This record gives sequence, structure tokens and C-alpha cells, in this order.
Amino acid sequence: METAIEELRALLGRDAISIDPDDLHRHGYSDWSTTNVDTLPTAVVYPTSTLEVSQIAKVCAKYKIPVIPYSGGTSVEGQFTAPVGGFSIDFANMDKILAINDDDLDVVVQPSVPWIELNEHLKPAGLFFPVDPGPGARIGGMVSTSCSGTNAVRYGTMKDWVVNLTVVLADGRIIKTRRRPRKTAAGYNLTGLFVGAEGTLGIVTEVTLRLTVLPQETSVAVVTFPTIRDAAAAASSVMRAGVPVAAMEMMDDVQMGVINKVGSTKRKWKEVPTVFFKFSGTKAGVRDNIETVKAIAKSHMGGDFQFAANQAEQTELWSARKEALWSMLALKGEDEELWSTDVAVPLSRLAEIMEESKKDIGGLGMFASMLGHVGDGNFHSAIFYNKKDPEQVEKVKRVVYKMVDKALEMEGTCTGEHSVGLSKKASLVKELGPETIGVMRELKRALDPHSLMNPGKIFDL
Amino acid sequence: METAIEELRALLGRDAISIDPDDLHRHGYSDWSTTNVDTLPTAVVYPTSTLEVSQIAKVCAKYKIPVIPYSGGTSVEGQFTAPVGGFSIDFANMDKILAINDDDLDVVVQPSVPWIELNEHLKPAGLFFPVDPGPGARIGGMVSTSCSGTNAVRYGTMKDWVVNLTVVLADGRIIKTRRRPRKTAAGYNLTGLFVGAEGTLGIVTEVTLRLTVLPQETSVAVVTFPTIRDAAAAASSVMRAGVPVAAMEMMDDVQMGVINKVGSTKRKWKEVPTVFFKFSGTKAGVRDNIETVKAIAKSHMGGDFQFAANQAEQTELWSARKEALWSMLALKGEDEELWSTDVAVPLSRLAEIMEESKKDIGGLGMFASMLGHVGDGNFHSAIFYNKKDPEQVEKVKRVVYKMVDKALEMEGTCTGEHSVGLSKKASLVKELGPETIGVMRELKRALDPHSLMNPGKIFDL
Repeated sequence: METAIEELRALLGRDAISIDPDDLHRHGYSDWSTTNVDTLPTAVVYPTSTLEVSQIAKVCAKYKIPVIPYSGGTSVEGQFTAPVGGFSIDFANMDKILAINDDDLDVVVQPSVPWIELNEHLKPAGLFFPVDPGPGARIGGMVSTSCSGTNAVRYGTMKDWVVNLTVVLADGRIIKTRRRPRKTAAGYNLTGLFVGAEGTLGIVTEVTLRLTVLPQETSVAVVTFPTIRDAAAAASSVMRAGVPVAAMEMMDDVQMGVINKVGSTKRKWKEVPTVFFKFSGTKAGVRDNIETVKAIAKSHMGGDFQFAANQAEQTELWSARKEALWSMLALKGEDEELWSTDVAVPLSRLAEIMEESKKDIGGLGMFASMLGHVGDGNFHSAIFYNKKDPEQVEKVKRVVYKMVDKALEMEGTCTGEHSVGLSKKASLVKELGPETIGVMRELKRALDPHSLMNPGKIFDL
Repeated sequence: METAIEELRALLGRDAISIDPDDLHRHGYSDWSTTNVDTLPTAVVYPTSTLEVSQIAKVCAKYKIPVIPYSGGTSVEGQFTAPVGGFSIDFANMDKILAINDDDLDVVVQPSVPWIELNEHLKPAGLFFPVDPGPGARIGGMVSTSCSGTNAVRYGTMKDWVVNLTVVLADGRIIKTRRRPRKTAAGYNLTGLFVGAEGTLGIVTEVTLRLTVLPQETSVAVVTFPTIRDAAAAASSVMRAGVPVAAMEMMDDVQMGVINKVGSTKRKWKEVPTVFFKFSGTKAGVRDNIETVKAIAKSHMGGDFQFAANQAEQTELWSARKEALWSMLALKGEDEELWSTDVAVPLSRLAEIMEESKKDIGGLGMFASMLGHVGDGNFHSAIFYNKKDPEQVEKVKRVVYKMVDKALEMEGTCTGEHSVGLSKKASLVKELGPETIGVMRELKRALDPHSLMNPGKIFDL
């Protein structure tokens, strides 16, 4: 390990490698992760180019040292932990937007570009990148966790927006998965394979993303419902009616209370299940969509329709939703940790599983909220618990994995957008069965025979 | 081989295997393919279930016999040829729609379901499956070629619409790539890997497809342009303005002449470059979009705006576009063959490459047309040539591969939607380079070590 560090220092410069304990801790532990491990990375390496990443991979291959990519560090299922040590590759110095091809509707970026900053750069050209996970996320991690967010119901998830990837393989080879066409049917979809592979097949060092045009008109409306079931049923009806909502997000009574308590918005909200709708398109199109949604919501007991009066209020309302997890964290007690996890089910089953999970989570007697990307059949629960109280840990786990099992029973998935990391490995085996996991394992072995690429994540070898 | 056939007859019944010469020819040769080979499959097997496909794979693994999947037989780059013999697996008896989950917006089908028939079944539920390649295509082949069609500009391509796949691997193992959630980030995207793998990694035996809701309102408009360059530039501007056209298709002067000659529609068309626009959404949204497109087209010298007066005329206009290839074939002389191929480039380069290719193709002195999915940067050329005239064959090849090279130079792809088959293997190496092809090869070897799954396609081992 020491020799490897010295070799890398000779190649990349002394400052490119850190063994500072705080740095190691920040790269191996996360406050908002459901799983942390006792080990930390042995070193953190800060490459500045794809070529340097390739050099790192070659040295690591020589000394059989694990390699763990790191960008925003906002993942919640233990994706960047170092269960067997190894080098954390932090892309902090690879944070450039390399090209904005506005007439081609695409952009070339390095892994450490934050999506929020990217959108600020794109705004003058009237363009945006629609995948919107948690505020701190960066493109590298977003690719590797196949993330999504509130815009997914209209625009799809990460896999739909990656044109090509530059990837460094376990042995240091550099490949580019595609050129830059908007559409292609040429050869295996390697892009799609590396998206969501959580860095276990190779290290993403450059990304071309598709872009879309900022809509002419947007509008935000908020509707309350008597129960989660009513809210989820209304969301399913909106989807079934084919209304192209730009987003459709549900927060439960607890989460609405959090917004009030933290004061994220100027309004005081009713603390009942609430759906936030975003509409976008032309003026007339938005008006039509609002009318349809109003009628559907009413038929599901929706009430208290409120519209954002202007752009500022739209932003404020929507940020209340986007910062839900952060608002929760603001209320976290000294000894508390947050368990934030997600599942997804076929649309028609959403109302049932959300209602049931709400009951289970409520029964814990802990502070817990639920929020859902209800147009995708995908929802999150977030529970505060005391990590040092084994009984509490046990109770939370029981409720979470019961929710996962219920989702699987409904032909759903153990994670709609957080990905597997360390926490959902057993659930993934339940979800797909040993034969399908076997195929994943064979692919992994083909590209990473010594299991050096983010080992221990997604499945065990 | 004989022993294998006897074993399969014992397992599946005598009628499940055909060695009838006409049957072999139909499964190894295609009139509208750019590449045919001298060999034919040794037998055609007609399974009735996934389990039977698994039995076939096991027998073939035992005797090292290649396996070539066959559904609609409409591919054009030699995808279902048998360059080293083997068994063609025709899914004719696996043509059932197994479940329509209308509230989940998905459907479960067998490989031999034609997409047109599927949409007829979905219509009463107000749903449709938007991927629309050539009229005869069936779901199995559509998955394996990662096809698309005129709706791609709005709805994306095959890879965006597959929820899960049941796949039989080379050794007979049966896997399911996912359960049935609309969104998931759980494990490797095997679905996305098998989509577009042309049957070289395994045999798709069951498919869950996402569906969408039929739009309230549709409209079709036709606009003429003085040159292909103007038409392509107008299309790029429409994309850049973010108008959500449902489709945007260009046909050149020759293709418009074909429609007139064959009499596909009641109208007589000007034989000049023409763009067909389809609009869909709410009434008001469609009206808005039409106005925007009209203004853009005018600024690019577009004229002669014509709208379909009613639904029947919409269907007629659109079918003129959809049946373009068939219309061409109706004009094919006795000794002639059709070379139909496609490339795709970043949007801003489309006008240039289409203009240049038009010039080259025009210079051949043969009957040739061009048509483009111009919102995707993707276009086709179709050329009649006499296969028995080596000089003609040589000339066509030269023009086609010049077009491909030009597309690659522009960071494009050798195929936007037809996929590689036999004809584009060398182009794929040029496009992605030996390192990236090397990764595809390693994945192939991991899942199909004896290269029995549709061997010889996409790349050479």
C-alpha cells in the first residue's frame, strides 16, 4: 500500500494523494447514509484527467488495491464506503464543463460537475439537464447510481440522458462507449451498462449528456388530500389520463410539518398528505393540464388548491419539496441518524403499499416521514433513530425491509433511485434471484477479474 | 446435427422442427437486406414456450450448434442470416399478448407479437406502444435491434420502453432481467444490455413493455422546402426551439415521386424535399405547436403548408411515410435489389451530411431516395442496384460507406436504428475503436463462451 502511494505520488505529484484522517473519514463515512462500515479508505487520490485515472487504475491493479469513485458524496446506501479499504478517487479536480453543444442539445462534462451548477451554466442558452436528485449530487455519482428525481415522471431517469461515457477499466484501459449521436443502434449498449453499475465495472471519467429546451411556461400547484391512499390514487389517475405533468410529488403530514417547523417557505401548510404538481409547456397547454388535474384531484377528495402566484413563489414551493431531506436533517437530534430509503412498485399498487408502510412506520413511535415520486410508483421513507440503541436499529430495519419485501411481492423493486450500495444487497437477490445475479457476477468478472472496482457493492462475489 | 434434430423432435414433437428448403431459405435470405450470405440455417425450430427455448439452447450447447432468433424477419443488415449454419428459432408460435396491465401502463408479450397488432389490442384501453419501425416488425426483433421509427423524436427508442426481459442464455439458463416497476436503480441494467445485442448474448423469450396514453388530439401537416439542406435546417431549429413534435419526417424529391407513382395517397405531391410533421397533445397545445413550427419553417424557405382535413386524411398522409420502403419495393425491377441503410449524426450536422450524401447518391445514376427522422439526426438512403453487376455493387458500397465515414467524422454513428448485423461490422470498429469492441467481446465471451448465440453479428470474435 505504501509503495503504491509512493508510486502514485511520483506520477501525480505529492498533493494528489491525501492520508489525512479527516479526509479519509469524509470519504468513508456519511451522516445521511443508512449503512456505514468500520473501515475507511486508506488514501484519497485527486486525479486531474482521464489519463491520471488510468495511471491510478494501473498502479492499483499491480498492487491489487480497491478503487472507490467519489464525487458529490450524497448517496445514502453506502455506495462510497470502503468495506475492504482501498483508494477513494475524488474527482474534485475534474469539475469542468468541457463543451456545451447547444445546437446538438448536448454537453460534455467531468464527473465532479454538480447538476445544479450545470443548469445555471445552461440557462442562458435556454437549455437544461432535467435529472434532479438531491441538491449536492454530481454527475459522476448520478451516472453510477442511475439516479433520478422529481422530473423523472416527465423526463425519465439518468439512463435516458447519457449519450456516451469515457470509462477507465480495472486494468487501466480507457474506453469511450459511444460517439455523440442522439440516437444509435450500433453495438452493445455499454453506456447503459455502466449507468447504475455503481463504479463496480469501471470508473466514469467523462460524460456526454443530452439536454432539453427550457419550457416556455411553468406553473406549480399544491393540493391536499385526506389520506395518503387518496393522494396516491389521484396520482395514478393523472398518469392513466396521460396528463404530461412536469412533476408530481407527494409529502405526508409529517413532512409538511417539517416544512412548517424549519420554515422552508413563507406559507404555513396544513399538516396533511399533500401533492405538489409542476406543469410545463406552452401557456395554453399548461392551462389545459391544470384543468384536467384539478378535476381528477377533486374526484379523489383533493382540496385546497393553491397556485404559485409568480416565478419566485414557484421556486419557493418547489424548493420546499427539493429540500425535504435537508429539512429533516435540520431537526435531527444529537444522537440521531437518518434512515432514508426508497422502493418502487407498478403504478396501480402505489396507494396500497404507501398506506401500509405509513402505518408500519407510524407504529415505530419514532419521527418518520414519507414522500413519493408518485407518478413513477416510487417513494421514500425517512426515519430518525438512535444508532447506539440496538433495539431501535432493529425496529427500523424490520420496518424498512418489510416495506422492501412488500414492494417485491407487488412485482416492484428494492430501490427506485437510490441504488443498492451495501444496504440492499440481500434485497436484490430476493428481487432478481440467484440466476440473474449470477449473470451480473459473470459480467463483473469479465471486466474486473480481481474485484478491485468498488468491491462489495450491489452483490457479493 | 442430425442427432440434435432427433433429440429436439423427441422433446418438442416432430412438427416443431422444419428442414424444408423453402423454410430454410425464408429464414436465411431476405429480399430487402443489404447483405445475404450463401449459407442457410440447417433447420428451423418452432418453440411454444420459454421452457422449450431453454431445451433447444441446451441441446445446441451440447452439440455446439449456433442459434439464430427470428421473429418478423424485416431486418435489413443481415441480422437473421446463418453465416455458419445452425438453427433458426422462429417464434411464430409465441405470438401472445400475455397481460395488459392498463393501470400500470405496461403489457407483457411474447417475441412474435407484431407492434401494429399490439397497438390494435391496446386502443380500446386508450393506450399505445409508441415504437414504430417498419410495418412487419415484431417485438422480439425490435428488442434485439434496438429499433425505433418516426415516433422516436417524441417518445425515444426501444431501450426506453422495455421494463424487463425473459432471456434464455447459451447454456439454457432462464433469467428475468427485472421485475415490473416503472423505475428502478437496482443492479446492472441487464435489460438495456440485451436490448440491441441482436441475439448475440441470449434469446429473448418474453418482454414487458411500457405503454403510454393515446393523445387527445393529433394533427398532421406537410411542408415543402427548396432543398434538403433547408428542410434539415428547419428540423434542427424546431428541435432547438423545444417544440414537442410527435414526429418530423423528411422525404426527398425522389421519395415523393415514388408516392405519386405508386399512388399511396389520393393527393398528387410536388416532387421536392418535404417534411411531414405530426403533432399531438391537447387541442390548445397542438394549435400552439403548429403556429411555432409554421414560423420556423417559413424562416427556412418552407412553403405549401398542407394540413390533413380529418382523421382519415391524417392516417393516409402518415401511411405514405410509413410505407416509403414498401412503396420503393413496389417499383423494384426483376434484377434489382434494394440497399436500405441508415446513419445518425449530432443534430447540427444533419443538413450538411444529408446534402452531401444526396449529391453522392444522385451521382450514381441509379434510382435512389433519402428519407430522414430529422429530429433525431438520423436518415436513411435506399438505392436500387443490380446484384449481379459487380460494378454497380461496388459503386453502391462506395457511396454507402462514404456516408458512414462522413457520419463518424461528425461524431455520429454507423447506424441510428437498423443496427449492425453483418453489414456494419467494419464500420462499428471504426466508430468505437478496438478497445471498446474488446469490452463487448469480453462480455460476449462471459455469457456465450462457445459463440453459439447468433454468431458473426455485430463484431468478429
